Amino acid sequence: MTEPREAAIAYAHRNQERFLEDLKEFISIPSISTDPERKGDLLRAAEWVASHLRHLGVDCVKVMPTGGHPVVYGEYLKAGQGAKTVLVYGHYDVQPAEPLELWDSAPFVAQRRGESLYARGSSDMKGQVVAALAAIEGAMSNGALPVNLKFLIEGEEEIGSPNLATFIAAHKDLLACDLAFNPDTGMLAPDLPTITYALRGMAYFELRVYGPSHDLHSGLYGGVVHNPAQVLCELVAAMHDEKGRVTLPGFYDPVRPLDAEERQELARLPTTEAFYLEQTGVKMLWGEAGYTPVERTGARPTLEVNGLYSGFTGEGSKTVLPAWAMAKISCRLVPDQNPERVFEQFRQYIEAHAPKTVRYEVFNLVGGQASISDRNSDGVRAVCRALEHVWGKRPVFRREGGSVPVVAQFQTYLGVESVNFGFGLPDDNAHGPNEKLHLPTWQRGIDAIIHALYNLGEG
Amino acid sequence: MTEPREAAIAYAHRNQERFLEDLKEFISIPSISTDPERKGDLLRAAEWVASHLRHLGVDCVKVMPTGGHPVVYGEYLKAGQGAKTVLVYGHYDVQPAEPLELWDSAPFVAQRRGESLYARGSSDMKGQVVAALAAIEGAMSNGALPVNLKFLIEGEEEIGSPNLATFIAAHKDLLACDLAFNPDTGMLAPDLPTITYALRGMAYFELRVYGPSHDLHSGLYGGVVHNPAQVLCELVAAMHDEKGRVTLPGFYDPVRPLDAEERQELARLPTTEAFYLEQTGVKMLWGEAGYTPVERTGARPTLEVNGLYSGFTGEGSKTVLPAWAMAKISCRLVPDQNPERVFEQFRQYIEAHAPKTVRYEVFNLVGGQASISDRNSDGVRAVCRALEHVWGKRPVFRREGGSVPVVAQFQTYLGVESVNFGFGLPDDNAHGPNEKLHLPTWQRGIDAIIHALYNLGEG
Repeated sequence: MTEPREAAIAYAHRNQERFLEDLKEFISIPSISTDPERKGDLLRAAEWVASHLRHLGVDCVKVMPTGGHPVVYGEYLKAGQGAKTVLVYGHYDVQPAEPLELWDSAPFVAQRRGESLYARGSSDMKGQVVAALAAIEGAMSNGALPVNLKFLIEGEEEIGSPNLATFIAAHKDLLACDLAFNPDTGMLAPDLPTITYALRGMAYFELRVYGPSHDLHSGLYGGVVHNPAQVLCELVAAMHDEKGRVTLPGFYDPVRPLDAEERQELARLPTTEAFYLEQTGVKMLWGEAGYTPVERTGARPTLEVNGLYSGFTGEGSKTVLPAWAMAKISCRLVPDQNPERVFEQFRQYIEAHAPKTVRYEVFNLVGGQASISDRNSDGVRAVCRALEHVWGKRPVFRREGGSVPVVAQFQTYLGVESVNFGFGLPDDNAHGPNEKLHLPTWQRGIDAIIHALYNLGEG
Repeated sequence: MTEPREAAIAYAHRNQERFLEDLKEFISIPSISTDPERKGDLLRAAEWVASHLRHLGVDCVKVMPTGGHPVVYGEYLKAGQGAKTVLVYGHYDVQPAEPLELWDSAPFVAQRRGESLYARGSSDMKGQVVAALAAIEGAMSNGALPVNLKFLIEGEEEIGSPNLATFIAAHKDLLACDLAFNPDTGMLAPDLPTITYALRGMAYFELRVYGPSHDLHSGLYGGVVHNPAQVLCELVAAMHDEKGRVTLPGFYDPVRPLDAEERQELARLPTTEAFYLEQTGVKMLWGEAGYTPVERTGARPTLEVNGLYSGFTGEGSKTVLPAWAMAKISCRLVPDQNPERVFEQFRQYIEAHAPKTVRYEVFNLVGGQASISDRNSDGVRAVCRALEHVWGKRPVFRREGGSVPVVAQFQTYLGVESVNFGFGLPDDNAHGPNEKLHLPTWQRGIDAIIHALYNLGEG
């Protein structure tokens, strides 16, 4: 079985410059999903993906409407019923390019400088989508793929995929598969192939505390009215104990403990204390006692204050006793916490702790499930072997602190796990000016995807 | 000595309608001190007062410049060296009239409806200034006053008298006197003559807590960085203990305790729990254990959160871990607390409680001394007897929760106490739309001031 694999790799190497031209063309469409004036460009980008899939020989390619920007679907089922079916996920939308004056070259005209290609979307994630298509083209150059494929390339990832869950739930049969590839999670360093096997979920709340019916003069009434800003501070302050643990009732009950093997694996990651100190500019880290920084951000749930507001916030002084106060608070969740259940714990906490001297309201703004993948699934092992082959180094297994809801949505609606990897790097400025793609890593990435497809076909 | 006193009262009664016309003329000048475009009107109002004083026969009348709006000075020293000298304080500036659409008649065209005169400044305090001038005119109609008088009528009271302390300190000799009359503190009810013998001071701070060098993604960094908004809440929350007492170190040490007699006197006030519930709209009062509402607002120091700000405060959700957080915090002070010393206590508290994981800054924005007057001074007894005579009822003695810095400034720079009274009522809407003056109370007030002048001349 090494013959077709090596032929595919050779094909990919011969065609590297053309793949790069494809990527430059894809990049030139400013598909900024948050900008209502770019609706036409989003459609053009979707059509570009669809046309490219058709050109490869993918069947049933469709640009399918959603409540927002469309989803591109396609399938290749010629490997037959005995072969695995991989759902390839990606997104064709990008972040805005502002502030434009900080770019050294035009954001939507890809420019090669040194070993990198500079443009919005080069790393996140048009480069990753083109890498997957290039690898598939290489493998198809032998006439047949070793696995079946389906494609789901969406256009709303950068605005939180508001219509994706509905789309997936409505098309369970169409999207039925054995596993998903999600090449959107990147690597920790150019020499460190990385598999992200867990993503945190989220629950986002707003708490409003109401005191007097109107703002009061703090001189005339200070001392007889419970200040709602003070009450808000008391409620927020007691949401953590002195060990940095969240005090919502039952918060940790469903949290899967880390076993010794996983902790050892996480300890291999380069995101040490020094990394976090440098990235954040704080003089000292903080967090839940008994866990390392990488465990705290990836494997443990957290509660953060995202915003505070009350009373007078301008320059100088105003002696107001405010009528109300507000906090935005969000939790990052880990398996098997449930966002609705955490909102209920938040509600219970407030009910138990809010003094009778005030009124309050709690609002549940956003919820998304955490996800964790079996590190020994066929898919993970196939990608792991592929990365190890290309880099000559065993990949690190990483838990990611952020939330990628599509991974949990595939688990929930399709019952499948995703293999989360990719070839973006931490210094790619994914959402900032001068976004870049490191081309040697990208080219290795194409090879690795070819290997992964053949590994899956064998396994 | 009853002859001249009764002649003065009779004169005042004969001239009531003209006094009212004087007031309407004074009101028609929109002397809004906070509005830079009204500078000319402030000067017109000052000139109106000066001209009126000259017309009465007051000597050395001057409109004296300050760093802001001018002060009107005048003196009547013909009672001779043996007689007391009273410094009459007042202000000719007013609050803005906005929102104009809530007024039932034009704010600067006084309109009589029922027993009240409606206009901006009618109660606060052009009506009080005209009452004092009318009483003095009545007493002077007999040829000579029983006391010497000096006048200090300022134009910046409604913007916090920013230039007054400097002015007083620079003119100690000119302003030298035995006591001051400040008719700006009002009555608790039309049938309840009121002397305000204590005013709270103020110390106003800003606290800023700094965490990471820039806003962070709460998913990627939540759990390893001490959230500055959380730290701010913890610091603010612990500024009160479970008994509602302020925890700044040494905060209560210089506070003069209330004796049984004073508590009994304060218990006569109609500002009961029911009053505060109605005024504030809260369902339950709160405050320092062991003190009544009226003691809490008047005789005890307090600490209030005036404002909170951090991170994302717009609609919806943004998963930011904020770089910094801010609180505006002010204390109302009572004798013998000192605002500078309280700032130092605040600084010490933050230094002792701020965790090493954050940086912070504290700013001292405003400071003003509390004041308390001897309830048995000649001045207080003279006014007390006058009020009792006119109303047929012993006045209540009230501590006021707000701050009127001029009272402490007279104590500090001139070494004299003020008698704080006045004929405004709680429902006069002093700073709101449809400000009014209750005319029967105002006319009694003129009589009372005449009596007070003669009482002082006798005592």
